[in-house]
Amino acid sequence: MFKNVAVVGATGAVGQIVRRLLEERNFPAEKFRFLASARSAGTKLTFKGEEHTIEELTKDCFAGSDLVIASTPDDIAQEYLPSAVEAGCKVIDESGYWRMKEGVALVIPEVNPQDALDAKGIIASPNCSTTQMVLALKPLHDAAKVKRVIVSTYQATSGAGVQGTADLFDGSKAFLSGEKYEYKAFTHPIAFNCIPQIGGEKADGYTSEELKMLYETRKILGDDSILVNPTAVRVPVANCHSESITVETERPISPQEARELFEAFPGIQVIDDLPNSAYPLPSTCDGSDLVYIGRIRKDISNPNGLSFWCVSDNLRKGAATNAVQIGELLAKNL
Amino acid sequence: MFKNVAVVGATGAVGQIVRRLLEERNFPAEKFRFLASARSAGTKLTFKGEEHTIEELTKDCFAGSDLVIASTPDDIAQEYLPSAVEAGCKVIDESGYWRMKEGVALVIPEVNPQDALDAKGIIASPNCSTTQMVLALKPLHDAAKVKRVIVSTYQATSGAGVQGTADLFDGSKAFLSGEKYEYKAFTHPIAFNCIPQIGGEKADGYTSEELKMLYETRKILGDDSILVNPTAVRVPVANCHSESITVETERPISPQEARELFEAFPGIQVIDDLPNSAYPLPSTCDGSDLVYIGRIRKDISNPNGLSFWCVSDNLRKGAATNAVQIGELLAKNL
Repeated sequence: MFKNVAVVGATGAVGQIVRRLLEERNFPAEKFRFLASARSAGTKLTFKGEEHTIEELTKDCFAGSDLVIASTPDDIAQEYLPSAVEAGCKVIDESGYWRMKEGVALVIPEVNPQDALDAKGIIASPNCSTTQMVLALKPLHDAAKVKRVIVSTYQATSGAGVQGTADLFDGSKAFLSGEKYEYKAFTHPIAFNCIPQIGGEKADGYTSEELKMLYETRKILGDDSILVNPTAVRVPVANCHSESITVETERPISPQEARELFEAFPGIQVIDDLPNSAYPLPSTCDGSDLVYIGRIRKDISNPNGLSFWCVSDNLRKGAATNAVQIGELLAKNL
Repeated sequence: MFKNVAVVGATGAVGQIVRRLLEERNFPAEKFRFLASARSAGTKLTFKGEEHTIEELTKDCFAGSDLVIASTPDDIAQEYLPSAVEAGCKVIDESGYWRMKEGVALVIPEVNPQDALDAKGIIASPNCSTTQMVLALKPLHDAAKVKRVIVSTYQATSGAGVQGTADLFDGSKAFLSGEKYEYKAFTHPIAFNCIPQIGGEKADGYTSEELKMLYETRKILGDDSILVNPTAVRVPVANCHSESITVETERPISPQEARELFEAFPGIQVIDDLPNSAYPLPSTCDGSDLVYIGRIRKDISNPNGLSFWCVSDNLRKGAATNAVQIGELLAKNL
């Protein structure tokens, strides 16, 4: 059991869910503290029936804590989290800043728990679109080695923060009543539209979001030979990312074998009955901590190929749940 | 010039656009007639400033016409169009019924015009998601032979007819005001959701919409060796289908070469400047007769691979425009 957990970024879109999960899952810790930027510091929140005052995040705020769960923008994570490590805390970070750094563990508890247990410094939680994909890939990789992945995403606005979903709903309302709306979180209108760009251009015509899906996948699975071709697209869905995934494995995996592998793997639930229109939908996976898989079928363009559809709550398993699960894993091994 | 064009299904979602296009493009014909089911027959419409009475579609209504452009459900096309051929008309059909039949031409005028000119019977216009993809594939196929295509679609509700878009807008309004809405055109809510099923299950876990993208592509390009793996998904967009396409060619095509091939091909427009967030969007391609391509890049998982994003107005180039263009092609060769 941890003595004192510091929840950093406690008021953000993901931080709110971290708090809820720590309550729901009865996280093994004696005390909890909640930290945020100076703007939110001093305000009150209720946790497990008790009132807490939000403290200001500073470089010397970590003394007395033994676990930090941080959900902040990249620049905040870069600036403050090394101080938490120096103060002797275990540090779980949900930002993108540390994930690919040398010596930082990048962990999905169902996939590579040992990396979290071996970590000397920061333990990073992967990008939301990567987490659900890699959880789905892991049982296939163990069984038949994943060689190549082609993935097109259908990503929710909640991935762009609270303003992303405000833009979706307010922009949709404005559109439906013939009014103008100025989008704040997106370069183009997201209401009733698809935007084939998430993040800036990084290299070779791919965006930062897309290349996360390549490099983070390799790091988590510990296999730099895996090829990934991602297309990351924002769609007018408030929450839950969907992914159309085609995988090539070293030996063929039949849809039946894939279904059995998925069903036997922790954290995955299969919903797959096309004749009865049953498959995962953002609307039905919202609020769940699992990764859902359906439309499992042979890739009819490749004898070693398999295609499927994958949906998960990007704020939960894609962020908050994964971080809290890392914390639970560390607690069990204290 | 045609003497007498019969527009069948003149009041439907696509038929309305056919009428507008015949006006806009000053279609080469002396006279026009408008036909629909008994329900609409007798009502009036204005075409080129003149009032027309809608006639009832019957098996012996085609006498006197030399061209039929039909936009009807499959069962109506099946029942009535053979009579139009027997009456000596050239027949252009936008339904799905005749496309794959032996002896029926399946035509995109920019791709396989000769098939329309050689046709003895019905000339079918392809499925909307196929048309935009095959137009994009054609210049690549001519230059370097397309071997394999992996495509994930982001399809608009207008593809499900007038009720599809009514469901989208009415369902969104209801959702935003916390009310219930009963969807009529979709099995699941489409507002703020993605539905990974278009059409019923056909074979091997693929839907009818998906297999159209395989078989129609082979027929139009006249190459049964092409492999296509499609995932067809309905998204909450009113009009314009988007597609995330990855192509494998016999020899590598660089993004630069692909851009030049696309730009030189009729009916295609390239919008591709990721650093400036420029790429095709449903919101900006709506109402155009072209197929738009952006996000052109190397497939980083395959030395012979190319990936791109393709958007087109599914009611126009995906249906009405393509049919009217076939008519124009026939008129030029009368």
